[in-house]
Amino acid sequence: MTSSQDIAKKSIKLHEDLKGKILLGQKSRKLSIKEIQLIYTPGVAAVSKEIFEHPEKKFILTSKINNVAIVTDGTRILGLGNIGPYAAMPVMEGKAILYKQYSGITAFPICLGTTDKRKIIETIVAIEPVFGAINLEDIESPKVLDISKELQKIISIPVFHDDRHGTSVVALAALLNALKLVKKSLQSIKVIVAGAGSAGVGITDLLRFAGCKNVIVVDSTGAIYKGRSKNMNPYKNEIAAHTNPRKEKGSLEDVMENADVFIGVSGISNLVTEEMIKKMKKDSIVFALTNPEPEINPITAKKAGARIVATGSYQFHNRVNNALVFPYLMRAILDHKISKINTEILYAAAIAVANTTPRKQLRHNNIISNVGDKKLQQNITRALKKFYRK
Amino acid sequence: MTSSQDIAKKSIKLHEDLKGKILLGQKSRKLSIKEIQLIYTPGVAAVSKEIFEHPEKKFILTSKINNVAIVTDGTRILGLGNIGPYAAMPVMEGKAILYKQYSGITAFPICLGTTDKRKIIETIVAIEPVFGAINLEDIESPKVLDISKELQKIISIPVFHDDRHGTSVVALAALLNALKLVKKSLQSIKVIVAGAGSAGVGITDLLRFAGCKNVIVVDSTGAIYKGRSKNMNPYKNEIAAHTNPRKEKGSLEDVMENADVFIGVSGISNLVTEEMIKKMKKDSIVFALTNPEPEINPITAKKAGARIVATGSYQFHNRVNNALVFPYLMRAILDHKISKINTEILYAAAIAVANTTPRKQLRHNNIISNVGDKKLQQNITRALKKFYRK
Repeated sequence: MTSSQDIAKKSIKLHEDLKGKILLGQKSRKLSIKEIQLIYTPGVAAVSKEIFEHPEKKFILTSKINNVAIVTDGTRILGLGNIGPYAAMPVMEGKAILYKQYSGITAFPICLGTTDKRKIIETIVAIEPVFGAINLEDIESPKVLDISKELQKIISIPVFHDDRHGTSVVALAALLNALKLVKKSLQSIKVIVAGAGSAGVGITDLLRFAGCKNVIVVDSTGAIYKGRSKNMNPYKNEIAAHTNPRKEKGSLEDVMENADVFIGVSGISNLVTEEMIKKMKKDSIVFALTNPEPEINPITAKKAGARIVATGSYQFHNRVNNALVFPYLMRAILDHKISKINTEILYAAAIAVANTTPRKQLRHNNIISNVGDKKLQQNITRALKKFYRK
Repeated sequence: MTSSQDIAKKSIKLHEDLKGKILLGQKSRKLSIKEIQLIYTPGVAAVSKEIFEHPEKKFILTSKINNVAIVTDGTRILGLGNIGPYAAMPVMEGKAILYKQYSGITAFPICLGTTDKRKIIETIVAIEPVFGAINLEDIESPKVLDISKELQKIISIPVFHDDRHGTSVVALAALLNALKLVKKSLQSIKVIVAGAGSAGVGITDLLRFAGCKNVIVVDSTGAIYKGRSKNMNPYKNEIAAHTNPRKEKGSLEDVMENADVFIGVSGISNLVTEEMIKKMKKDSIVFALTNPEPEINPITAKKAGARIVATGSYQFHNRVNNALVFPYLMRAILDHKISKINTEILYAAAIAVANTTPRKQLRHNNIISNVGDKKLQQNITRALKKFYRK
């Protein structure tokens, strides 16, 4: 049995044993009848009245500020595609557990029985009062980008889109550290981003904000450039307008020529060949982030000449995975009452994550912290302090 | 400081200290990185695939069957009225804690930012996949009755309406026991129900199902009778058609003449006077269930001649409160995969609750079990076994 088959089998067994991973807890211990009078009727009426008269007290007297809705419509679950809201649940419950374990957040899965953009937005608007933030998860692109954009205009709590925001933060953080090791600057490198979905859009935005001058995004049609007409959408038009300054055209293999960095968020396993790696510049950096199977096996990539290789998987070194960021970033966003997420905030978070691994600890197989690293929380929280109540 | 002011103050203090009562827990202990591979990516992909291929496994591999949405629009919170979704939260969180403490259910507050009937229904339909049941709570009547009726046609999980269903079960259970003490039969008594909202409708339905021939429902306009035209709605028309066989008209005071039982779910404190009690038959039973202040103070009622008096409050004997029923009833409904709640099920639950207090333990100030009574769960679960998968 291969290791990944083994993990699959163990995982199903564990889920069968647990029969549902999440469970409501309570902050107080088991209550006496007397205490129930305070937590529930009649005492709770005074608490409700207090909030009615002083609305800002909802942040103190209820769980709102610690509650996050993990919203999905099940259309793009991991590498499995559109498998619906029920099959999406184990992933959302898993995410809820990471939120709880790493940052004490109560994240509740909201797996929707609709894939209609309008209905998704309306549902989130309707449930807003209970939550301190929304986490959009595994909804197909570009629909999810529209939802995120529209929602943030309507609701007053932050809309965090982990596939876009979280991935971009962890990718930039890892890249900044990798560049320190190969002694290249972000300003001077050529970066290929494979994938123009949520993650591709997010990474490209953040790379540009960070000062990277030459990013080329490649989708199933090939390189995106200003003037391309086939298979475009508003987000790709935006990409075309602001990236690929030399208007390079052609396939992924074509544009990999002389690239310093490859970042794969394509959703396609084994997209990248040894030949492509060989076309890259000296000291090349390859982030094959598609899960569960990366764009290229790290061993193959190294053999073909890549200097630093990372994946999103726990099975290899250099785990460039959202899980490293989202619990801590969300905690900081909630604590600082940030109501909108922007690129400036994400950039600050990426710098904080990168700097959590000190320069002298950086190695080719250690470019980024691990998910349990307690310094991540304090560093991200400190970095985001300046955005308080903005 | 009066006792109720004292409770109010203590309750606000406790909520300030807790800063939100509910918190997500997890069934497993704190996870290692290796275990996270099973709970989250990459292992969880196998679990999602399993559910996609065998949809019925959602009941085994996810938390769905143990999750309940407590849905409110904040329009009728306790005795406070339309105070909105934020002020509603402490009540819903309190309810969630009772669900957790007494029956291990994960109930999550869904406090809606809309009071529109259509939008409420659509939101619940959209979030159905995550939950094993819906608990409608503190939504104004008759809107909530429409929502409940329509919803149950659309979704495949049970719609529990505690104000209606839970209240009717606990009221009938207490009444059956009180009647044993005064040696009267349900078939022969005259019952006045004050209030034609959710609780009034529910109690009247269940009393009729149980065999009570003479129920008179009184609202703010007076007794409801066949042919009344003022201040009616479809639910009151239904009441008019099937109750009050002698077509008694007039005020509450008028119809209290010769009543055996008064059940108050009017939402109006001190609605009932000593004079009204004095007009009732010998061995009268008075359930003044409005919270936090009942329709008549129990001491006053007793002094005026009532034989058995109950309220919904923890401050007096005979606590006829939903909290005695809803956690256990919901547990039984979920465990038996009951997809629709009907009067037959509620009647079986009421008999089970009544019989939890053995005949020889019945006293005038002990007509019903207390909320912590462990026998309630096993008795209700056993009573509902025959409805399994119906």
